[in-house]
Amino acid sequence: MSEAIAIIATCDTKGEEALYLKQRIESYDMDGLVVDTGILGQPVFVEPDVTRNELAEYSGFTIKDLVEAGSRGAAVEKMRDCVHAYVKKLYEEDKISGLIAIGGAEGSVIARAAMDALPLGVPKIAVSTIASGKHLFSDLIGYNDATVMHSVIDILGINTISRTVFNNAVGAIVGMAKVKSEASDKKVKSIGISMLGTTTKPIMGVIKPELEKRGYEVLTFHANGTGGDCMDTLADEGFFAGVLDFSTNEMVANNLGGLHVAKPARMEAALEKGVPTVVAPDAANILVLSAEEALLSKYDGRQKYYHNPNITLVDTTGEELKIIAATFAEKLNKAQGRVKFLYPKWGFCSQDKEGLALWNPDGNPVFLAELKKTCGRISPSSKSKPTSMMMNLPWSHLRSCWM
Amino acid sequence: MSEAIAIIATCDTKGEEALYLKQRIESYDMDGLVVDTGILGQPVFVEPDVTRNELAEYSGFTIKDLVEAGSRGAAVEKMRDCVHAYVKKLYEEDKISGLIAIGGAEGSVIARAAMDALPLGVPKIAVSTIASGKHLFSDLIGYNDATVMHSVIDILGINTISRTVFNNAVGAIVGMAKVKSEASDKKVKSIGISMLGTTTKPIMGVIKPELEKRGYEVLTFHANGTGGDCMDTLADEGFFAGVLDFSTNEMVANNLGGLHVAKPARMEAALEKGVPTVVAPDAANILVLSAEEALLSKYDGRQKYYHNPNITLVDTTGEELKIIAATFAEKLNKAQGRVKFLYPKWGFCSQDKEGLALWNPDGNPVFLAELKKTCGRISPSSKSKPTSMMMNLPWSHLRSCWM
Repeated sequence: MSEAIAIIATCDTKGEEALYLKQRIESYDMDGLVVDTGILGQPVFVEPDVTRNELAEYSGFTIKDLVEAGSRGAAVEKMRDCVHAYVKKLYEEDKISGLIAIGGAEGSVIARAAMDALPLGVPKIAVSTIASGKHLFSDLIGYNDATVMHSVIDILGINTISRTVFNNAVGAIVGMAKVKSEASDKKVKSIGISMLGTTTKPIMGVIKPELEKRGYEVLTFHANGTGGDCMDTLADEGFFAGVLDFSTNEMVANNLGGLHVAKPARMEAALEKGVPTVVAPDAANILVLSAEEALLSKYDGRQKYYHNPNITLVDTTGEELKIIAATFAEKLNKAQGRVKFLYPKWGFCSQDKEGLALWNPDGNPVFLAELKKTCGRISPSSKSKPTSMMMNLPWSHLRSCWM
Repeated sequence: MSEAIAIIATCDTKGEEALYLKQRIESYDMDGLVVDTGILGQPVFVEPDVTRNELAEYSGFTIKDLVEAGSRGAAVEKMRDCVHAYVKKLYEEDKISGLIAIGGAEGSVIARAAMDALPLGVPKIAVSTIASGKHLFSDLIGYNDATVMHSVIDILGINTISRTVFNNAVGAIVGMAKVKSEASDKKVKSIGISMLGTTTKPIMGVIKPELEKRGYEVLTFHANGTGGDCMDTLADEGFFAGVLDFSTNEMVANNLGGLHVAKPARMEAALEKGVPTVVAPDAANILVLSAEEALLSKYDGRQKYYHNPNITLVDTTGEELKIIAATFAEKLNKAQGRVKFLYPKWGFCSQDKEGLALWNPDGNPVFLAELKKTCGRISPSSKSKPTSMMMNLPWSHLRSCWM
C-alpha cells in the first residue's frame, strides 16, 4: 500500500499552505503528493507533483480550455471533473492512500469532487473556510465517509491559527492512513437494504434475522434522499452481495418533487453492476412533502396524512403513478444481473389500506399496468402470488416475486 | 497532559458503539472516557465513566428534571447545556485531551455543544448521520476547529461499514491528540481584526505591515456572520493581545436583519475580557441583503447598491441608525479594559461618499449623537481628529481616536 497522501490545493493562491502540509506529512515519514488545482496562475512556493496541465490533459483538456470555459463557475466545474478523474486514477494505481484538501468556496467544490473519488474507508479530509454557519454539508460531503475540519479563518498563509488547524488535520489524515494499513479485508457478505418507516418492521423483524441466519450482514440505509445514494455509492464500489431496494420514495421525489430528492441515477448502481437485487415500491405512490408545500392549491382535494409537524404525505394521481412506474421500468431495464420486482398488492405504504388516509385501490393497478408495459424484463402475463401489504411482508414472499 | 479522549454518546441506544470506540482508543495506549448523554434509558453494553446523573448534577439538575422537561426538544436542550459544562470542566481539569462524539439528529445537538466547549487546537471530532445533504454545518460546527465525519449509515451497531468509519475516526482523533502533545506553546502576540471589502485595503495595506513591524501577528476574520463569532470565540479563549473590531455590519444584521447575522453577544468577548480593542463602524450604516430581500416594498425609495448577483446593499434610516448606535454603546459600556472608538467621519463604507450610491451625510451624525448619548465611556464633548473614510484610514488615525 502506498505511503503517500495527496494534497489538493490551488497552488497559485495556496502554494505556501500546500508546501506546509507536505512538510508536515513528511515529518511522519509519509509522502505528500501536491496536486495543483489552480486554474489561472502559476504555482507559488511549491513545486506540484501533479501539475494543473497534467490534471487537465488526463481528462482530455488543456489548461487553456479551462481558463476559456466562459465563466469562473464553468472553469471550476471542468477542474472539478478533472480532479475527480485524476484522484480516482491515483488511488487505483496505488499512488495514494488518502487525501487532504484545502480551500474556500470554490476550493470546496474541488475538495468534494476529490473526496467523492475515494471509496469507503480510504481516508479523506477537507479543511474548509465554509464548514460553518448556513453552508450545506452537501457543499463538501457526498455519499461516503468524507471528513471536514473548519479552518476558523481564511486560508491566507501560515499563522498561529492555520498552523494549529493544519497540524491537527495532518495528524488526522496520517492517523487514519495508519489505520487503513492495519485493517483486514472485508470478509462477511453484506446485503444493502433501503428502509423507511413502513419497511422497518418487515426488514428488522423478518428479513434481517432470516438473512443473518444464512450468514449475511444486513446494512440498512434511510432512504430520505441521502441514504439511497449512499447505498448506491457502495453498490458501485462492489460492496454488496445483494441489494433489497425496497423504500423507493426517492423515485417519486425525483420525478414530482418532495423532501426525498436523490441523484437522478438512484437505484441504478446495483442493477448495472449485476448485483442480485429485489426492487419494491414502498412509499412509491405518495408524495412526501413539507407541511407548507402540502398546502399548495395543486394538492387540494387529495388524500393527505399528517406524518409529523414537518412532513405531510399526499396521495398521487393515476397520471403521476404512470410517470413513477415508467421510471422504475427504465431502471429495471438496465439490470445486468438477477433482479426481482416485489409488488405489494395490498398496499404500497402503511397508510395505503382500506379505511386509512392514503388508500389507493384504483391507483396501484395503474402503476402495475404501466410497469408491465414499459419494463422489458416483466412479461405482460406475469403472475405473482398476491404479495401482502409492504409493512406485513412475510419472508416467503421475497422468493415468490417476479422476474 | 491527559492521555484520555472523551467519548460522547447516548449509551442507552449507542452503548455498543461507545464501547467499541473505547476499546479502539485503548488499542493506541490511550484512555477512552465514556460520557453517557442518554436521557431516557439505562446504559447498555458499556459502563460509562461519567454517568448521565453526574452530567445533570454538575449543572444543578437531576436526570428526572431532564426527563420531565416537557418535550423531547426541551430535554435535549438541557442535556446539551449539561454536556457543554461538563466537557469544559473535564478539559480544564486536564482529564481529557480531546473528544469524539457520535450521533444522529439529536446526537448532533449534543456533539456540537461538546465540541464548542474545547478551545482551538484541542482535537474534536463528531461522527454523524446528518453530515450530508441539506443539513447545515451549524448543526454540528460552531466557531472553532471542529471536525465532522459522515457516518454513511445510521449508527446501529458494529458492522463492516460502521467499523470502518469508527476505526478511521479513532485514528483521526488519536492522530490529532498526538500532534497536540508535540505542539509548542503559542509565543507570538496576535491581533484579531474583523474585515470586509471596505476595510481590506487599510488593513492589508497599512495596519498589517505596521503591526508586523512591531512584532505582532495579524489575523483577519471575514465578518459575514461567522467570522466575527470565530474572532470572539478566540478572544474569549484569551488568544489575542488586541482586537481591531472594524467591520461591524453584524451589529446591523443582528438588529435589522440581513445576511450577516451573528450571535447576540457579537463584539463583547474582547471587551469583557479586557483585551485592548478599537471598534469602528465599517459598513454599520448599511443593510447587506439578498437580491430578493432588497426588492421588498419596505425598502422602496432607499439608496441601493448592487454589490454582486447575490448581495444588494441598502441605506439605513436615521431611526435605524439610532438603534444600531445604541447597540454599539451597550457593548462598549461592557468594556473592562482599554477601548477606543474610531469614527470615520468621511464615510462608513466605500460607497458612503459624495456622488456614490450610499452617501449618508445626514445619517452618520445621528449615529454619532446617539452613540455619545448612550455610551458612558465617551464624553459628550469628545473631539477627535476628523477621521478619514474607513477605506482610506491612515495609520496615524488609529492613535487619535476616542476614549
